[in-house]
Amino acid sequence: METWDALGSRRNVRSYSERPIAPEDLDRILEAARITPSSANEQRWDFIVCTDRRQLEDLSKVWDGAGHIATSAATIGLVAPKTDEGYARDSVHYDLGQATMSIMLAAADMGVGSAHAWVSDQDRARRLLGFPQDRFLAWLIALGHPADRPLTPIKHPKRRSFDDVVHRGRW
Amino acid sequence: METWDALGSRRNVRSYSERPIAPEDLDRILEAARITPSSANEQRWDFIVCTDRRQLEDLSKVWDGAGHIATSAATIGLVAPKTDEGYARDSVHYDLGQATMSIMLAAADMGVGSAHAWVSDQDRARRLLGFPQDRFLAWLIALGHPADRPLTPIKHPKRRSFDDVVHRGRW
Repeated sequence: METWDALGSRRNVRSYSERPIAPEDLDRILEAARITPSSANEQRWDFIVCTDRRQLEDLSKVWDGAGHIATSAATIGLVAPKTDEGYARDSVHYDLGQATMSIMLAAADMGVGSAHAWVSDQDRARRLLGFPQDRFLAWLIALGHPADRPLTPIKHPKRRSFDDVVHRGRW
Repeated sequence: METWDALGSRRNVRSYSERPIAPEDLDRILEAARITPSSANEQRWDFIVCTDRRQLEDLSKVWDGAGHIATSAATIGLVAPKTDEGYARDSVHYDLGQATMSIMLAAADMGVGSAHAWVSDQDRARRLLGFPQDRFLAWLIALGHPADRPLTPIKHPKRRSFDDVVHRGRW
């Protein structure tokens, strides 16, 4: 798919068909995450990929808004080192955002939908995924073929207008 | 360009040719930023795009590592609301990371290189860009055609190995 079509057709999908994601496609999505840029190339991230239905159902309980994880074809957990406030913490989240977009666009390129989830219950997340005490599960990215309509370029995305959000030269 | 080629050929470029970026190409890059997903679709961002050489030179002084801004064809400043610590702050940076990757991939799709810069001198940034007191300039993304070799898929990106960074099912 053309890059612009992937950018333009990516949308948050929280209702998934039962069609699995082929293992080689899932690995390609993970490869997109792996090669994402990060602050000073520190790569302060690990990606835990879950495809087991029972585990996905359990994982969907780490946050009130994570119900869609349960029915996803696969979910990628973004694990990062715990950091103090300030630049380290800001840049960890910034870098995880970059990895997220790589994941979502690589997925959209194959017609695979995606949706974020936050994590409020770190103890449950650690029990389910086994990551060390000095890390936390920052975000989850659910993946799956859309249950309703395929991904196609969105004509009128619900966003602030171009002229509102873009400033030329000065605010 | 195919999405995968854009993902695989994007690299940090800090040395730019004198070739400008066509206004319609720059607007397309900004459109990619505009349609990026964000937490609860809050779109807590504004994009200030700079192409004036004098302004770019001044802007390159907002951080010790921002020298490449001076010679970029264009630079996009990511402005966000000041937030308290915690989820609001984490998610602002996460969302800006998502917008950054949209910008960089839309640019790579046109053969345009890019590189991040942080901002340490907020007073100077505010003087140059005129954003309100309740906002800050979080990051800068410099853009330009590479001075050396064109963007082509990178065979061996300098990253942790796939098996190191990807965990299947559990850490």
